[in-house]
Amino acid sequence: MVSKVVFGRGSFNQLEEILLLKRLNVNAPFIFLVDEVFQGNDKITSRIPLAYEDEVIFISAKEEPKTCQVDALVEYIILKFKDRPSGIIGIGGGTLLDLSKAVSIMLTNEGEAQDYQGWDLVKNPAIYHVGIPTISGTGAEVSRTAVLTGPEKKLGINSDYTPFDQVVLDPELIDNVPTPQWFFTGMDCYIHCIESLNGTYLNAFSQSYGEKALELCREVFLGDHLNTQAAQDKLMMASWHGGMSIAYSQVGIAHAMSYGLSYLLGTKHGIGNCIVFDRLEEFYPEGVKEFKAMKSKFNIDLPQGLCKDLSDKEFNIMIDVALSMVPLWENALGKNWNKTITREKLRSIYEIM
Amino acid sequence: MVSKVVFGRGSFNQLEEILLLKRLNVNAPFIFLVDEVFQGNDKITSRIPLAYEDEVIFISAKEEPKTCQVDALVEYIILKFKDRPSGIIGIGGGTLLDLSKAVSIMLTNEGEAQDYQGWDLVKNPAIYHVGIPTISGTGAEVSRTAVLTGPEKKLGINSDYTPFDQVVLDPELIDNVPTPQWFFTGMDCYIHCIESLNGTYLNAFSQSYGEKALELCREVFLGDHLNTQAAQDKLMMASWHGGMSIAYSQVGIAHAMSYGLSYLLGTKHGIGNCIVFDRLEEFYPEGVKEFKAMKSKFNIDLPQGLCKDLSDKEFNIMIDVALSMVPLWENALGKNWNKTITREKLRSIYEIM
Repeated sequence: MVSKVVFGRGSFNQLEEILLLKRLNVNAPFIFLVDEVFQGNDKITSRIPLAYEDEVIFISAKEEPKTCQVDALVEYIILKFKDRPSGIIGIGGGTLLDLSKAVSIMLTNEGEAQDYQGWDLVKNPAIYHVGIPTISGTGAEVSRTAVLTGPEKKLGINSDYTPFDQVVLDPELIDNVPTPQWFFTGMDCYIHCIESLNGTYLNAFSQSYGEKALELCREVFLGDHLNTQAAQDKLMMASWHGGMSIAYSQVGIAHAMSYGLSYLLGTKHGIGNCIVFDRLEEFYPEGVKEFKAMKSKFNIDLPQGLCKDLSDKEFNIMIDVALSMVPLWENALGKNWNKTITREKLRSIYEIM
Repeated sequence: MVSKVVFGRGSFNQLEEILLLKRLNVNAPFIFLVDEVFQGNDKITSRIPLAYEDEVIFISAKEEPKTCQVDALVEYIILKFKDRPSGIIGIGGGTLLDLSKAVSIMLTNEGEAQDYQGWDLVKNPAIYHVGIPTISGTGAEVSRTAVLTGPEKKLGINSDYTPFDQVVLDPELIDNVPTPQWFFTGMDCYIHCIESLNGTYLNAFSQSYGEKALELCREVFLGDHLNTQAAQDKLMMASWHGGMSIAYSQVGIAHAMSYGLSYLLGTKHGIGNCIVFDRLEEFYPEGVKEFKAMKSKFNIDLPQGLCKDLSDKEFNIMIDVALSMVPLWENALGKNWNKTITREKLRSIYEIM
């Protein structure tokens, strides 16, 4: 689990104090991986505490994070600096947070990031890493995974060394997120809850986190009484609790199928989940109904016809990726999941997206 | 925060596997501090994984944990074993968990436990320590404090090094707790929630944890639909969430005054909180009303007349201890708390207990 967390509006200002004690020496920089939407945004960049060799690297989150991107960042850091960094600080959404987790791991582990996609393959502790979400919903700030698209698969680096050593939860930072992105990312959390709470892996630990996250999502996306600040605070906590819920259970069908979309078409995770979940009435009837109500409340249009021109080969690639997510299917439908979920069944669902 | 947690009925059996990777060498034992109620209880003791020099020390939880008890345990361990232990494993309720946290800290920090009562006074990381609750409510399994009664005060060792490195939440272990003890300890959690949720320090982080814990307490102590196992599971999670809630806010009046009772009369924390909270209608009207309903549902009789024969000097000792808990009063009543809370006011409340 995350070792330390601070929460509060304006808590981003505590970053300098937090890092002060963690600097190894003047040659060991802090590397800030920051979503490029903040480039030129003084309100954020002027508050990043830089000293000595510290460096800010702006990174686009337009595409899902890739193993090769991690390897390139690690190579750049190793070649440029005399000493191993004092720490990696990720500032952004799930993409930046997962990249930061993966870079911090690959600075102390040999080989390439793709070698560690899976469960508990990481051998050495990562370097100190801090996560600062600027958009809420993915749960990446609290999870023990760093989801990456590799040459062969989209799969997380799941390990005890993946979680952040420190998280700064400052709800002010999620101000100004464009509504569609805010919605799609928030729905990642909502879908986590539905998948976790309706899963066969559920236990009282996950249930208590999932129920709280779901309640907060409903307040934010269906309620009428919250002011902007309260909605930001609550969404940030929903993401946290939703992440904790799936960390101790598992996600389900929407995530399995959405991984197929991402892998083949590069569809971003949040919107991909929404596109898939929208078609899963058969499996999550109440959740999908409520999702459609939220979509309608915020006038969200989902892309249509994503799969209409795909070839058989392309469908098969998506189906292979989705079917490889065995724990997700098992969580959703139990041990005999593959009696219900055939290739034809999956294709029929993908075809209407 | 706690670095790792496992949850589940029977998860106590994972302890051997968990400790396997943490043994430093054959001369560095694991020391198990275990509530003496389990002495002779094969169902528990036979599952404690012992090897090499490992030792089980049974400790009575009849009295609140003391700084001198911590110092004696540390001295015993240092004199008996060649190497510093591989870890301390606490198995029991709040008393055993707090003792284990404190011993693990004092094995790496000079001086006496009383030197570290306060906030952030601990200099060196504690040795590896594991918490395994066998009764639920205190939140000691998740908190960053180890509350001890010292020669001068009852106050916690609050530090970043206090939380457990690993927690094992096995709801089976809270089977067979006698009803009054189960109730008093559970009410510690309920009172945490009321104090946190009604406090001026409240933020969305603490609120989300406190609300969930409160909801779970209500299911356990007021609901009619839970079977025994579900009630155990939910109470264990209530304690966890309640502990998280106060870790990021603060407790209030019941705790401040209960510390006075404990210090002077040795009243155990859980029952002391109940005795005080029962008299706090003025400050927490709804919470106290609900508490009385739970008390009545389980036919709980609280001791009466605890303070009827106390001298002025004794009242003053309790009042001094209670008044010294400044953050608790400030959380409960705001910065001007001492306009409402005079010595006379406190005495009048203590007098009816």
